[in-house]
This record gives sequence, structure tokens and C-alpha cells, in this order.
Amino acid sequence: MTEQARESNRQWRLKSRPVGMVKESDFEQVSETVPDVGEGQFLVRNLFFAFEPAMRGWLNDVKSYVPPVGLGEVMRATCVGQVVESRHPDFREGELVSGVFGWQDYTLSDGQDAILRRPVVKVPAGVPPERTLGALGSTGLTAYFGMLDIGEVKAGDAVLVSGAAGATGSVAGQIARIKGASKVVGIAGGPQKCAWLVDELGFDAAIDYRKENVNARLKELFPKGIDLFFDNVGGNILDDALLNMAQFARVVICGGIAAYNEMELPPGPRNYMQIVIRRLTVRGFILIDHMQEADRARQQLAAWLASGELRGREDIQEGFENAPRTFLRLFRGENIGKQLLKVAEPPLPVVS
Amino acid sequence: MTEQARESNRQWRLKSRPVGMVKESDFEQVSETVPDVGEGQFLVRNLFFAFEPAMRGWLNDVKSYVPPVGLGEVMRATCVGQVVESRHPDFREGELVSGVFGWQDYTLSDGQDAILRRPVVKVPAGVPPERTLGALGSTGLTAYFGMLDIGEVKAGDAVLVSGAAGATGSVAGQIARIKGASKVVGIAGGPQKCAWLVDELGFDAAIDYRKENVNARLKELFPKGIDLFFDNVGGNILDDALLNMAQFARVVICGGIAAYNEMELPPGPRNYMQIVIRRLTVRGFILIDHMQEADRARQQLAAWLASGELRGREDIQEGFENAPRTFLRLFRGENIGKQLLKVAEPPLPVVS
Repeated sequence: MTEQARESNRQWRLKSRPVGMVKESDFEQVSETVPDVGEGQFLVRNLFFAFEPAMRGWLNDVKSYVPPVGLGEVMRATCVGQVVESRHPDFREGELVSGVFGWQDYTLSDGQDAILRRPVVKVPAGVPPERTLGALGSTGLTAYFGMLDIGEVKAGDAVLVSGAAGATGSVAGQIARIKGASKVVGIAGGPQKCAWLVDELGFDAAIDYRKENVNARLKELFPKGIDLFFDNVGGNILDDALLNMAQFARVVICGGIAAYNEMELPPGPRNYMQIVIRRLTVRGFILIDHMQEADRARQQLAAWLASGELRGREDIQEGFENAPRTFLRLFRGENIGKQLLKVAEPPLPVVS
Repeated sequence: MTEQARESNRQWRLKSRPVGMVKESDFEQVSETVPDVGEGQFLVRNLFFAFEPAMRGWLNDVKSYVPPVGLGEVMRATCVGQVVESRHPDFREGELVSGVFGWQDYTLSDGQDAILRRPVVKVPAGVPPERTLGALGSTGLTAYFGMLDIGEVKAGDAVLVSGAAGATGSVAGQIARIKGASKVVGIAGGPQKCAWLVDELGFDAAIDYRKENVNARLKELFPKGIDLFFDNVGGNILDDALLNMAQFARVVICGGIAAYNEMELPPGPRNYMQIVIRRLTVRGFILIDHMQEADRARQQLAAWLASGELRGREDIQEGFENAPRTFLRLFRGENIGKQLLKVAEPPLPVVS
């Protein structure tokens, strides 16, 4: 690559810790020289950034399952990119790869991400790179393990998914359908999302939480109660679901986007004593604990995608300068399916 | 029995549904004629009433795991009494029996309780009748199934119990100790309760939530996190515990006395997202689902009591007229161990 290109590695860095709703001004754009590639390293040109609600949690200075993003550090994000220079035996120039490369044009890698030491993954031949970040990426895997290993969905279950038009929820609901759930209902915001769930993804029904009385609709749709609730949202939706669970039912807590941007932790589920009254099992999980099974899961997801049983959808915005703005789309409920930002075309011919 | 005695069956009936904290005036005392004993029935003279926080829930007009006590109905309660007249083949005059007989002098029974159709149980020979309501009664059984079947306590677990000086908590903590927990800590209110837990029941430590910073003490006592939390309280104590759970730990929700007398449901656990962050499993349960195993459990509890590994304690008030007042002791945290009210001596020689 030319010296000129090396001089312009644009980055979005965390400028200030968000207080309440994350703002574009919490990030600042800077330019750095592209780093030199040392022995055992390779340089990635990032093509797509992926966005997930959990990234909001990484911005808080609290102990959690991963360390927070430091002030002044490049914003952490999973990306797909192309290897443009390599001194690593396992990675060749032109290959497409996925990893935690961050909001920047170029990332130097040794084959593992710097935070969790997870391996950089190659995009399989024939798979659109954006799909690697969606149904085959961390949100698809989260749906897979959450619905199957944690929720233990089985044929005949009446299943509810919140955040159902999001990247995780949309895959989770479809997996429940594939596994023979007797009913799959999604909760989402707005008629467009609800129509997509029912008309294209095969959900049995969708509840528009912005317009409908969720509790009343749940009573109507689940006269015998919900056997499995896969929750991405929390807040009032969790409370309404708790009032409509079947006895001995399961709740998978995957996320709680309703509270991610609150300045102070909002009250928890008022109806949590339903856990006792209805003898519920409530389980939380995080994808990183399941990565040893990720290959198996990706193969299954890819097979379902190939057969048409599972549909992926990406919401692709464009332009490096729009990274913070695109992140905010998640919290405004603007995305349908996986939120991505396309930042470049592959500079080299793709090899695999 | 004489006609005169039959004419004086005192009862405490539910007069009004409590709003907020239950009051003595929510009950009214009336007198009824003692009913005639029909074929297949027997008459019980009640000797002890047992009190449990869950009884507060039965006073609310909401759908739950048991129907509410109706206005004008005798207050529902588990009791020990003596069979004083019998036309039932399995029950003889003079036998001591336990069942859901309610706050009244005399109860007519057909051998099952009227609400849940659970069998009336005979007090085993040699067992003090009050113990049948305590460590061998519903609270002891609740501790047993909650700690073993739901919490799956195992050797080496670091265990926390809230409401630890109550009837259920005190037995739950001792079972954890018997099963080889590496540490058993109880949370209770006041120095007398805390001293009892440590000095007499063998808890490793006790936290006085009225005087101590629970979160700080938990951090100190559980540097590697809590493996199993058995919660009877909810509220701030649950929130503090959630911040101190080990990864992949278990929370058993047995009750939530902190909220039972609130006029409106208070906020739930603010820190519930720790379920995700720490990958917790939270389970609720109710004793009635485990009654087919009750005999086995009672035998084990009786064996532990006999060997001295388990200690029971009853807090015995006296006098029929004090039933509502004694009930209130639970919510003021006045009882240590099982709250009972003695209402009579056995009128007949005890046979077994």
C-alpha cells in the first residue's frame, strides 16, 4: 500500500463517557498514521462496522464481563474487513475477515482481538460479508445459544420474543419457529417492523408496543401462558410478560435495551414475584461463554440460511463519518435487522 | 363433648382486605356454633396456629397459586389440633393432627384441607406438636426443597440467606451447612437474631441489615462471590446480593416479605441485569408442587433434628384473641424462628 494511504487512518475515539442517552459528541474523529505491520501481524482495511446495543454498556466505567472502552480509545466494534498487508502465516492479502477491529479505517491484528483474545474469523467463500456480521455474527450466535442452550426451546412451546425486529430477536424467533414452537410472537415498535415479522419471517403475530396494550394483547395471544420468553428489552415489556407466563415457564434475559441509556438505573421488574408465583426459571447468558461451540452454531445457521428457513436482514448505512449517528439508530429503534455501516469497498480483489 | 362447648367456636374472619400494612382491624372475631360431625368427618380442637408471611398474599383479591381468602371467611392458617370427635375411619379421638384448619377453635375436617385438598397429617409420636408447624412444617419443607431441589446446594458453595432468622431462612441456612457449604451467611434484623444465627445455628456470619451496610459486608464476606442466594426478602437486600453474586451462580426466590404490605407494588430489583452480566439462574418455587416428596423430606428433617445437626425454634405467643396481633409480628420482624400462637391445651389425653 502507498505511503499516502498509511497516513490517513481515520478513527472514532471515545471522547467522553455518555451521561444518559449516548450522543454523537461523546465521540471524536481523529486521524492517525496507519501502523507498520510487524512479523506475525496483518493489516485490515475495515469495510463494515457492526452495531449492537451491548456496546452502550462498554461505555460505562463499571466492572462488567468486558472492560469498558477507555477514554481516548478507538470505539470497540465488531467489523468485517479485508487483509491488505500480511506478515502472518495464516492470513493472506485479499482475504475477508471478521473481528473486533473498532471504528477505524485500518486495524493491525495478530489474529486475535486485543480485549477478549478471540480469534479473527475468515469470511467463508460465497457468504456476503455483511451476513457474517448479522445472522452469522455475534447477534445470530447470541440468538442461537440463547434460544437453544439457555431457553431450551422445544416443539410445542408458545414463545414470545421482545426486540423481535432487531438482529438478535429476529433470529431468535425464527429459530423457535424452526424448532417447532406452537406459536411465535414478536414485540416490536411500529407497523413496518411488525409486518416484516409476520409476512416475511413467519412469526404468528406481532405486537406493536408503541400503539398496542402489550398486556392485553399477550393475554389474547397466549391464553395458556407463555412457555418461553426471550427478552432483549426489559422495562414495561418484561413486566407485562411476567404477568403472562405459564407455570414453570422459562425467561431468557438476553438484554435490556430499555435501560441502557438511563442516567440512573431505573427500577427493575415490579412483577418479579411472578417468578415465585408462576415458578419461573430466569436465566441470563453472554455469548463469550459459548464461543467454543461457535463453529457448530455458525454451520447450523448457515444451513438454515441456505435452505431459506432462516432469513437474515441487514440495515446498511454508509460513510465512515456516520458511525456515531448509526450507533444511535439502535436506541431510537430505527433499525430493522442488523445495523451495519459500510465504510469502504474492498481495495483488493477478494481471495478466499 | 358437651353442647355448651359446641356453642362457642370462636373464629377470626377476614373483615376487610388490607390496604398496605395489614391491621388488626382487618379481622373480626365472631362466635359460631360448633358444627355437627357427619359421617366421614372429624372435629379438631385447634391448639396452635402457625403464621407465615405468604398468608399476607392470600388476603389480596388477585389470582395466584391459591385463591384468596374471601371476605367474611375464617382466616386461613395451618394449625395443629386434637381430634375431639370422629366419624372418620382413619382418625381417632385424642390424636394430634396438622392441617389448614384456620383461625378458629374448632374445625370440621374430612381428612383433606378444603382449599388445596392436601391431606391432614398426624403428628408423629414423640414429636412436640409445635415442631410439626416449624422445622417439620411447611416452612421447614420450604427450606428443604428450596435449598436442595431448587438451589441444588452442594459442598463448597458460598451461601447467603436473607430473612435468615425466620422459620424458613433459619432452616435453609442450616441445611446448607449440613450439606457442606464452604460458608453460610445470614441477613437478619437486630443483634439478637444475628447472635442466634452464629452462636446457636452455626452460621459463619450474620449481617444486621438494620445497622450495617449490606453491600459492603457482602463484599467483605464473599470476596469470590455468592454461589447460592436464598432470598426471602427482596427489596434492597436482593439488589445488594445481585451485585455480589459469583458468575454462573443461582438465586432461589422463596419470598419477598419486603413488599408484601406495600399498597402498590414497589419497583423490582434495579440490578436485575446482573442476571445477564453474571450469567445467573434465578428460580422461584412453591411448596405445593413438592408435596409428593414431603414424607421423605420430613423424615430427613426429623433425623437432622434428632441428631442435633438441625435446630428448630418456635416463637410461641398465647391466646386466641391475639391471632391478628401475632400475625403482625412477622412484618415487624419480631419473631425469631417459627411464629406460633398457642390457643388451647389438648382437651383429651393425647393418643398416637
